[in-house]
Amino acid sequence: MKTLTILGSTGSIGRQTLDVVSHAEGRLKIHALVAEKSVQLMEEQARLYRPEVVVMMEETAARELRGRLRDLPIRVDQGMEGIINSVIAQQVDTVVTALSGRVGLEPTLAAIDAGKTIALANKETLVAGGDLVMSSARKVNCKILPVDSEHSAIFQCLEESSETIEKIILTASGGPFFGWNKEKLATVTLEKALCHPNWDMGAKITIDSSTMMNKGLEVIEAHYLFNMEYDGIEVLIHPQSVIHSMVEYHDGSVLAQLGRPDMRLPIQYALSYPTRWKNPFERLNLRGKTLTFHEPDLDAFPALALAYHVGRRGGTLPAVMNAANEIAVSAFLHEQVSYLGIQEIVEKVCSEHHVLDNMDLGSILDADTWARRRAEELISIFQDHKFDI
Amino acid sequence: MKTLTILGSTGSIGRQTLDVVSHAEGRLKIHALVAEKSVQLMEEQARLYRPEVVVMMEETAARELRGRLRDLPIRVDQGMEGIINSVIAQQVDTVVTALSGRVGLEPTLAAIDAGKTIALANKETLVAGGDLVMSSARKVNCKILPVDSEHSAIFQCLEESSETIEKIILTASGGPFFGWNKEKLATVTLEKALCHPNWDMGAKITIDSSTMMNKGLEVIEAHYLFNMEYDGIEVLIHPQSVIHSMVEYHDGSVLAQLGRPDMRLPIQYALSYPTRWKNPFERLNLRGKTLTFHEPDLDAFPALALAYHVGRRGGTLPAVMNAANEIAVSAFLHEQVSYLGIQEIVEKVCSEHHVLDNMDLGSILDADTWARRRAEELISIFQDHKFDI
Repeated sequence: MKTLTILGSTGSIGRQTLDVVSHAEGRLKIHALVAEKSVQLMEEQARLYRPEVVVMMEETAARELRGRLRDLPIRVDQGMEGIINSVIAQQVDTVVTALSGRVGLEPTLAAIDAGKTIALANKETLVAGGDLVMSSARKVNCKILPVDSEHSAIFQCLEESSETIEKIILTASGGPFFGWNKEKLATVTLEKALCHPNWDMGAKITIDSSTMMNKGLEVIEAHYLFNMEYDGIEVLIHPQSVIHSMVEYHDGSVLAQLGRPDMRLPIQYALSYPTRWKNPFERLNLRGKTLTFHEPDLDAFPALALAYHVGRRGGTLPAVMNAANEIAVSAFLHEQVSYLGIQEIVEKVCSEHHVLDNMDLGSILDADTWARRRAEELISIFQDHKFDI
Repeated sequence: MKTLTILGSTGSIGRQTLDVVSHAEGRLKIHALVAEKSVQLMEEQARLYRPEVVVMMEETAARELRGRLRDLPIRVDQGMEGIINSVIAQQVDTVVTALSGRVGLEPTLAAIDAGKTIALANKETLVAGGDLVMSSARKVNCKILPVDSEHSAIFQCLEESSETIEKIILTASGGPFFGWNKEKLATVTLEKALCHPNWDMGAKITIDSSTMMNKGLEVIEAHYLFNMEYDGIEVLIHPQSVIHSMVEYHDGSVLAQLGRPDMRLPIQYALSYPTRWKNPFERLNLRGKTLTFHEPDLDAFPALALAYHVGRRGGTLPAVMNAANEIAVSAFLHEQVSYLGIQEIVEKVCSEHHVLDNMDLGSILDADTWARRRAEELISIFQDHKFDI
């Protein structure tokens, strides 16, 4: 039996992780559930899954939950200290890192240092702190198992020796605006951007999918997870999202992983690895299906080109791009900037940043904080001047 | 360095195996080349690859070749005894079994008994003698590595434990007559049947592909190679032949192997296994490609249904089906029976056969001989009576 701490249990990946736990026939046990502020849902999850600990990032949420769970022997902790304690607890085997954004970085590093296995669903962690996270993991021989469907696919296609890999091919649905040009993209509304054709996901990642920044973040994630140079990582548009990604070996053979667009599959694989567990989830049926593949349009979706550039430059720049993107997407979700404004803000913040190399956690967080503040400034300047971004 | 004996070096697979040897940068060495009767090509191959031994199945061909190769220090042997000696020679590591038809059975068994690794390109061997071959291989812990592109694909998609496999999905191009009904199939000429849409192969396997008997033989081959029940082997029509086959695991995840339709890839993998060798062969390019998948039409292509039935029944019946098919296809290639006549003959011979279980090599060869004679009788009876088969 494996004992889990789930960071971000009330989000989309967190809820699906709990569904996997429900189907795991006693092979998974929960030590702690962690969320930012969703008191109502956390109360329901705590009553159903009976963890030893729940942690709310926000103090007021923790206080309210403490009151609601008075009748149960469940400890309610709060803040980053509570989160760190929940991941380093001795009984925990695996930490599912499904908090959205850079807030996942510190608990992930703490879990690695404590020798826990990481089921990584927070790609921002690797984008912001890839060098730091991977070198920490190598030091203690910690396993980082990908939960992102693309990276899980690659992980499943890997053979023992990585020396024979020629190329990683990340597939991308292309999002709801595949085939659109810049002009048409200027008309995108919040409502349209929130409709992903294949996957049912959280709001932030859905917007990132539509701009292809999500694929850009995944390129950087793949670079760190699989220790692969950027020239060896290719993005291929595959609107049907049936092939989740591929590995091309240096003899010309390509291995691919296919499945329904159900995040419970990669989540379960990260938790069952190195074996697989039977489940009753619906199966892929290829009969009558048509799969197509296209080159990505970097003119219409410059976020992808930016991410390659930022990834290659490295240092604190990926953390800055990620932070600026989080702020810009949030502003778009609050209808404070236009759709194309997201990219403008992210590009401007990246271009203004003085990149630091050889970073520690402090310099990453500093760069992140600077980028967030700068993105917010740009948004309010543009709003004051009624620029249309 | 691995030392090879190539059975069937002048055939399509044999010639491509030699091309792989040419690209192997000294990692492969040839002990013996074996063919039935193609003296001219064998002389060229012998001069180019300088094996220690060449063997011709036919005595007259051996005599002629001996004369032609007088100036070289190459021994020319003949007949089954010569073939057996060429595979059991001490310096041989791997035997590539690319002789067409059941003639491959005895040397394959001899190679297994001598502890050689088998690169299996002769599916008839496993169809006719699957139980015997696999139990012999298990006894001496002999590796049988598939060369058929579908079985190589499955082999490449296998994880360490076979207990988590739910299903093997063999893809089939559907051949040149995919989508045709029985009525239209009655009009098939030899010329049309010899045009395979994706693969450039020998005549016999090209006809088998067009009737889907080839896929039926592959289903039986997969049953033995991967120890999988027939209910767990599915055939999926995929006209583009990009996905060469798939494995569905019991968590719902599907692994697939993709590549260009180039037999040198699976041949090289069987020879490089467990590693992979770099090569300059053209790479798969999925950009702009469309992949489709369809249910096989068992009414129009009854050979596939017959093969499932025959495989499930087991005993001497698969050997009989294979033998009758070899004769019927040969008769079609000599324009002695019509296209639909192939299936009629194979079905009739199978239905007349008294199946033996617990067979040894003798009973397999007896059943095979009976089936060939009976198929020939049926062909001549039908010809005499001017039946249109």
